[in-house]
Amino acid sequence: MNDFGLLNPAWAGTRAAELTSDAAFGQAMLDVEAAWCRAQIRFGTAPESIANAVDAASKIADYDLAALAEQTPDGANALIPLLSALRAKVAEHDPTAAGYVHRGATSQDIIDSALMLVAARVGEYVVGNVKTTVRELTALADQHAHTVMIGRSLDQHAQPITFGFRVSQWIEALGSAGQHFERTLASLPVQWGGAVGTSTWWVDYFKAQQPESDPMELVNRQRDLLAEELGLGAASVWHANRVPVLQLAQSAFQITAAAAKLANDVLTAVQAEHGELSEPTKAGRGGSSAMPHKHNPVLSIRLKHAAQQASGDLNTLQTGVIANTAERADGGWHTEWAALRNILRTTGAVSEVLAELAGGLEVHADAMRRNLDIHGNYIFLGRISNWLGPIVEAHGGAEPGDGTQLVSSICQEAIAAQDDMAQTLVTKLPAGVVTVSAVEKMLDPAGYTGGAASLVTAVNARYRKWST
Amino acid sequence: MNDFGLLNPAWAGTRAAELTSDAAFGQAMLDVEAAWCRAQIRFGTAPESIANAVDAASKIADYDLAALAEQTPDGANALIPLLSALRAKVAEHDPTAAGYVHRGATSQDIIDSALMLVAARVGEYVVGNVKTTVRELTALADQHAHTVMIGRSLDQHAQPITFGFRVSQWIEALGSAGQHFERTLASLPVQWGGAVGTSTWWVDYFKAQQPESDPMELVNRQRDLLAEELGLGAASVWHANRVPVLQLAQSAFQITAAAAKLANDVLTAVQAEHGELSEPTKAGRGGSSAMPHKHNPVLSIRLKHAAQQASGDLNTLQTGVIANTAERADGGWHTEWAALRNILRTTGAVSEVLAELAGGLEVHADAMRRNLDIHGNYIFLGRISNWLGPIVEAHGGAEPGDGTQLVSSICQEAIAAQDDMAQTLVTKLPAGVVTVSAVEKMLDPAGYTGGAASLVTAVNARYRKWST
Amino acid sequence: MNDFGLLNPAWAGTRAAELTSDAAFGQAMLDVEAAWCRAQIRFGTAPESIANAVDAASKIADYDLAALAEQTPDGANALIPLLSALRAKVAEHDPTAAGYVHRGATSQDIIDSALMLVAARVGEYVVGNVKTTVRELTALADQHAHTVMIGRSLDQHAQPITFGFRVSQWIEALGSAGQHFERTLASLPVQWGGAVGTSTWWVDYFKAQQPESDPMELVNRQRDLLAEELGLGAASVWHANRVPVLQLAQSAFQITAAAAKLANDVLTAVQAEHGELSEPTKAGRGGSSAMPHKHNPVLSIRLKHAAQQASGDLNTLQTGVIANTAERADGGWHTEWAALRNILRTTGAVSEVLAELAGGLEVHADAMRRNLDIHGNYIFLGRISNWLGPIVEAHGGAEPGDGTQLVSSICQEAIAAQDDMAQTLVTKLPAGVVTVSAVEKMLDPAGYTGGAASLVTAVNARYRKWST
Amino acid sequence: MNDFGLLNPAWAGTRAAELTSDAAFGQAMLDVEAAWCRAQIRFGTAPESIANAVDAASKIADYDLAALAEQTPDGANALIPLLSALRAKVAEHDPTAAGYVHRGATSQDIIDSALMLVAARVGEYVVGNVKTTVRELTALADQHAHTVMIGRSLDQHAQPITFGFRVSQWIEALGSAGQHFERTLASLPVQWGGAVGTSTWWVDYFKAQQPESDPMELVNRQRDLLAEELGLGAASVWHANRVPVLQLAQSAFQITAAAAKLANDVLTAVQAEHGELSEPTKAGRGGSSAMPHKHNPVLSIRLKHAAQQASGDLNTLQTGVIANTAERADGGWHTEWAALRNILRTTGAVSEVLAELAGGLEVHADAMRRNLDIHGNYIFLGRISNWLGPIVEAHGGAEPGDGTQLVSSICQEAIAAQDDMAQTLVTKLPAGVVTVSAVEKMLDPAGYTGGAASLVTAVNARYRKWST
Repeated sequence: MNDFGLLNPAWAGTRAAELTSDAAFGQAMLDVEAAWCRAQIRFGTAPESIANAVDAASKIADYDLAALAEQTPDGANALIPLLSALRAKVAEHDPTAAGYVHRGATSQDIIDSALMLVAARVGEYVVGNVKTTVRELTALADQHAHTVMIGRSLDQHAQPITFGFRVSQWIEALGSAGQHFERTLASLPVQWGGAVGTSTWWVDYFKAQQPESDPMELVNRQRDLLAEELGLGAASVWHANRVPVLQLAQSAFQITAAAAKLANDVLTAVQAEHGELSEPTKAGRGGSSAMPHKHNPVLSIRLKHAAQQASGDLNTLQTGVIANTAERADGGWHTEWAALRNILRTTGAVSEVLAELAGGLEVHADAMRRNLDIHGNYIFLGRISNWLGPIVEAHGGAEPGDGTQLVSSICQEAIAAQDDMAQTLVTKLPAGVVTVSAVEKMLDPAGYTGGAASLVTAVNARYRKWST
Repeated sequence: MNDFGLLNPAWAGTRAAELTSDAAFGQAMLDVEAAWCRAQIRFGTAPESIANAVDAASKIADYDLAALAEQTPDGANALIPLLSALRAKVAEHDPTAAGYVHRGATSQDIIDSALMLVAARVGEYVVGNVKTTVRELTALADQHAHTVMIGRSLDQHAQPITFGFRVSQWIEALGSAGQHFERTLASLPVQWGGAVGTSTWWVDYFKAQQPESDPMELVNRQRDLLAEELGLGAASVWHANRVPVLQLAQSAFQITAAAAKLANDVLTAVQAEHGELSEPTKAGRGGSSAMPHKHNPVLSIRLKHAAQQASGDLNTLQTGVIANTAERADGGWHTEWAALRNILRTTGAVSEVLAELAGGLEVHADAMRRNLDIHGNYIFLGRISNWLGPIVEAHGGAEPGDGTQLVSSICQEAIAAQDDMAQTLVTKLPAGVVTVSAVEKMLDPAGYTGGAASLVTAVNARYRKWST
Repeated sequence: MNDFGLLNPAWAGTRAAELTSDAAFGQAMLDVEAAWCRAQIRFGTAPESIANAVDAASKIADYDLAALAEQTPDGANALIPLLSALRAKVAEHDPTAAGYVHRGATSQDIIDSALMLVAARVGEYVVGNVKTTVRELTALADQHAHTVMIGRSLDQHAQPITFGFRVSQWIEALGSAGQHFERTLASLPVQWGGAVGTSTWWVDYFKAQQPESDPMELVNRQRDLLAEELGLGAASVWHANRVPVLQLAQSAFQITAAAAKLANDVLTAVQAEHGELSEPTKAGRGGSSAMPHKHNPVLSIRLKHAAQQASGDLNTLQTGVIANTAERADGGWHTEWAALRNILRTTGAVSEVLAELAGGLEVHADAMRRNLDIHGNYIFLGRISNWLGPIVEAHGGAEPGDGTQLVSSICQEAIAAQDDMAQTLVTKLPAGVVTVSAVEKMLDPAGYTGGAASLVTAVNARYRKWST
Repeated sequence: MNDFGLLNPAWAGTRAAELTSDAAFGQAMLDVEAAWCRAQIRFGTAPESIANAVDAASKIADYDLAALAEQTPDGANALIPLLSALRAKVAEHDPTAAGYVHRGATSQDIIDSALMLVAARVGEYVVGNVKTTVRELTALADQHAHTVMIGRSLDQHAQPITFGFRVSQWIEALGSAGQHFERTLASLPVQWGGAVGTSTWWVDYFKAQQPESDPMELVNRQRDLLAEELGLGAASVWHANRVPVLQLAQSAFQITAAAAKLANDVLTAVQAEHGELSEPTKAGRGGSSAMPHKHNPVLSIRLKHAAQQASGDLNTLQTGVIANTAERADGGWHTEWAALRNILRTTGAVSEVLAELAGGLEVHADAMRRNLDIHGNYIFLGRISNWLGPIVEAHGGAEPGDGTQLVSSICQEAIAAQDDMAQTLVTKLPAGVVTVSAVEKMLDPAGYTGGAASLVTAVNARYRKWST
């Protein structure tokens, strides 16, 4: 039995899928076991001579993953059969060496550390892609800091914005999520504790071998070497503390959630009726032979779908974490694994899609301008009234507090009658209140984008350096 | 990239995993395409001659699943590349035949129908296993209809029950869930609608070929043949109506949820401190070389873990379903696939584990009896007071309404002083109220299980026939 | 502390919120206790005389809900303090009567039955609203069975449909979900079992009072009277079988999920760029004083939001259900309550909003037609090629198998050159293959909606009767 | 319609419920509006004179929350009717002042800021309770650093630990989660952006009033005053960036998840068969009149239930966040509100329950010791074999590599025969290998807890200072 991704358009065929495959997880378990042998050698508790045998047995390609999967249910984890195969393989090279493999460890030490290793590896890929995305988006925001479009609230035309401003909110979300994730990756903890987390085997060992020393200090120092070998944080045992797993998964999800917002916006904007954006094209992608006009926004669809998937996987992981018990959970721990892997995989695929999408998004400024005009001067009504109301009052054209309403009424009548608004206002308001050119200036959407460009500059300043 | 289940102890190595693998889904897609060709032949819209070429190309083992997965993202589904490969393979045998493949269909017709086909196949296996489980459990309930144990409420000893009664609640849950699921399976709908659900291609075709007929009637009759070929229900198009998918997934989840309850009970009962049940043993399962006393309840752990996993997958599916849009969703539909497959797979594995667990559960009646005694006579306090209170009042030993409280006080004092309760009651209550033997009879837990045995009989009567 | 719905636009101010309020739940608990007294009277185990005292104490308005909430955590349920207050109130009228209240019952009997009662009450309201909605939608579908619009797949223009056809998919989803829910409501089970589900109190009672009878038969007959009093199903105890709760919640969610699809479609269609639909207007709803052009589609927003909310609540309920243990769960049961109530409440509000939306949806057929034309003749390309390809081949204008491609190329050139497609085809294809008027007929979207109208008729036939 | 918590034992009657009630949210909205007036006064854009009128209208108790809830659906938020009532109330005192209320703001500015204010208020309470909990737990860990009990893995007896060590994993989880949450609280952002996030109203205002200045700089400075007034972070607009909400909710959930682990452990340990812990007692809590022996662990039940609830609420929030669109979402934003409030409320209640539980947990060291002995010497088998195996080999009593197995066999025979293990080993192994006293020392569980005490010290060192 094996799966390839036929039902998973979010991640099928991505590098993230490779980095989080069963083979990648298996390799990570072997890497942890091998690193533990090296840590023993460095700490002087194992002979240098075992290194070759262990190294020679540490390639996952030499193992039969399907057979390991068959054996997984009996112990409810894959490490047990893998370890058995690993020891046999090491023993073929060097019977003595086999005795050092996994010495004093427990399945959870290897599985938890291996998952952190997988996270570190795909995590680096994710952060790289998010930085690329943010870099592309900062350029896009700069380029369109003044490209006027309608801002939408609750799906309705509200006031003008610039496309650069909308992009700046994407950047803020992706950039902050990317930074959270990067910080989380920086402290991914190695797992080390033995059967019940107290390192009994090694405490016994050091008590016997170095009775004059504090055995836990030696245990910790040897564990630090393991962490160093793996590039993980030298953490105290966390067998029964699942906050690190939760933090990792939550943090990855933030990226996927931020990507979904971008995707939702693109999906609206590429609709034929909007036409404001196009996804980058690639031969063979998104087309339909029967409907040649059709250009499916598959990148955004994959991002939207990925977030739905990851939200459920995070829920699975949460359910596992809250079922945690005693020194090792009876089901909750097992639930974390695939959920965490899936979240990392999806986040990785999301980051890959994001980078491509951000790098090739086509902007149709003309369509943005055209859509902005759909409601005509209606979108300026508040602005004109707020501006002229007090002036009318100052000129005695309305009682104090009534000016805004008066101006608004005149404007609405002009719109209803399809009259020129500027002309109508000049005509109907007291002489000297306003000129046609002044009104026309206020009816220019380009002048009604508030701090849009300034916000683009500020957001870019916050994230550009990080992204390059 | 492929996964084997190394991170999925719930289903790794199960038959359900095979029945829901990417290969099984691929095969189902080929089966739908082939069935469509046969439907055309039967309806007279395609020549008999194409059958061989189509048949010859309908084995998923002849396709490169990894390559199909690579191509999946471009169209955001696996049918597009598979169809292309299928047509090429058919054309090799018979160039004409290729033109009949997928005629007038859309990706969604094939993918939705294929998923229903996968559901039907694994579903049959599930129902079989659930029936086996229920059958084993009815025997177990009969056998232990009178085996006394403590009933637990909010995790605390409450009143005696019998183990058979507890089992009868498992049966009720699994049996009703199994029946719901069986009913759902009986009406799994074929999907047929073409590009936007209106069968334009075939309506055009029949209008041209049989202008005198109602074209939709012909479309429907031809679709009915497809449904017949696949053993699915001849449903009206449901491209944009996802209730069938929701119903299927929800219904499968009921089984997994019912199994989790059973597993939770077993996990408590197999704890060393309880010792009331043991899981069936199998060489190599659940053991630990370092801790030979350890017998991990891996079957129940897998069931508990499976339910956590399935709950998250159902959540994913729900999230996809509520994001449904227009004639085919932009992401929501894609989210349904793997979620549905995972739920079916997990349910299948659950059913397999259930059957094994139910068939081999060892019951330790002595431990049940021992645990029942932990709180001594305390658990009878309410019973004794309710019984004797009115009698005491009738004998003038207490004011009306105070009898129960009086008896309760005497009992509690006896317990606190570790005195014999029957003797104490006879001594402290008015003469003639009660005898030692009468009290002792009321202190027998075997007589304090209410309708337990009767409920076992009733529940077994409801589900035994179905299960055999 | 009390909440009113300020953070819950989905249901604030709805009748469903009333029907599922804490007061409604409290009333339902009182109703169950009172019904139990009436059942005893009818069965002859309690005197007729207690009826008045119990009735007089059965109005939730006479209880201090805030105080009950304060006391809820101590026993982890609200029945305990309510029962204590109820007994006191009954005793004020008739001290004897108090002893019959809750006789032989347990908290779970009352709470589970009360939740079913709440479900039955709000459920009736839901089904009524869904029927109204379906009725309105069948009329809408009929009216627009031929109103042409573009069908959208993956958010992109695909082929023409009719608005009536789109509505028919809404009907199919809402109608089938409504029928599922109605069936579920028809078998909502009363809960009756006493402390551990075995009715010990009443078995003891009947053994003493009617030693010649089967005590469980008497228990069951008395319970049937309770069920009858409450209008619930006379079910066997389900304390430890939570499938009924799951089934109820899942079934309600189907309605909410079906509503979300309708809402998503409306939200797209009311966008200014689409303009195909408008929500019914109501003074003061959806407006913005600052932006008078703005008409927020608040009904659809509430439906979309409601489905997101209900999906999470269903997830909560699932998590509770799979944590079920022994004879009464230690947390899982408690989790079900608010989750179930929230789902029922949200479903109720959804049904109310649906009925209003379906009854007032404005259809802009002109906009539908205008949007359909955005891609011009491109959407007919497949149709024209499929039609003319074989004819061209038959006329010798192309090699067998190449006709379709030839026609497609000619069409695409015509589109690119903005030439008249019919004229171009007549010119470029062999004489006699086709006429201008024949092509123009094929380019009429009204003739390219396949079985749309037929499907409307069929779907309406399936659901109209049920809905009226 | 109002709810009090009758269905919510997790939080009914808690201070956290008060701090997150609809009234608390309403007050927070009024506080934001009032703070905005003060910010204007401080920035010189509003006269000092408005302060009194605004202050006088800023008490939520003066508003009719039920009426506001009734009006909430029309605009799909509660701020719209509240603002209208607020303006009217301000105008009663000072008609001019009303014009300054909400000037240039949008609903989202107020609602988002108000939710952050609610988070800050309940958050402070949460952090205080978590610190109290951690402080109590560090004392408990110290006290029981050497209290031996059995460590459990996958629900089975594994090796001895100390209770202090188990507590240290609770501390690590709660302490790290508490610190994450505290850091998140430290940067809760004010929301400020106007209709579409670009502060158009104020940019227009400042352009007109202070044409020589950069208007966005003035907007930002004025916003900083608002943030200062509210004690929130002076953030750039995040209308369309929902990462801050996600981060807040995720971070709160970590506490609830960590609490669930503690609760799960307590629920196992308080079972009659275990008897290792008791919850603190309180008159009227957890008792049952019918079953006086029953002491329901309601604190742990509430914690377990709370985590199930919060996991679903977080899922709801995630679903809302990934549905975010444009400048303000059409449903997704609305979904965040109650979900966030519920998570904060539940977390607050959890923290309150935790502090009580941690402060009163009773430890039964004798039961821990008794349970440890259930499997007798079996739990030492690995230890003895690992220790003696090499020594036997050194003495020539076994071939190299076979010593461990030999010793293990002897031990297992001794256990099976119920012989004294030390004596048997001395007898069966070569003379001089081992003494009875040496074996007995190795069979002392107190000496087999590895680094347990050392880990307690280390964890306490990490969190004690923070907690005091």
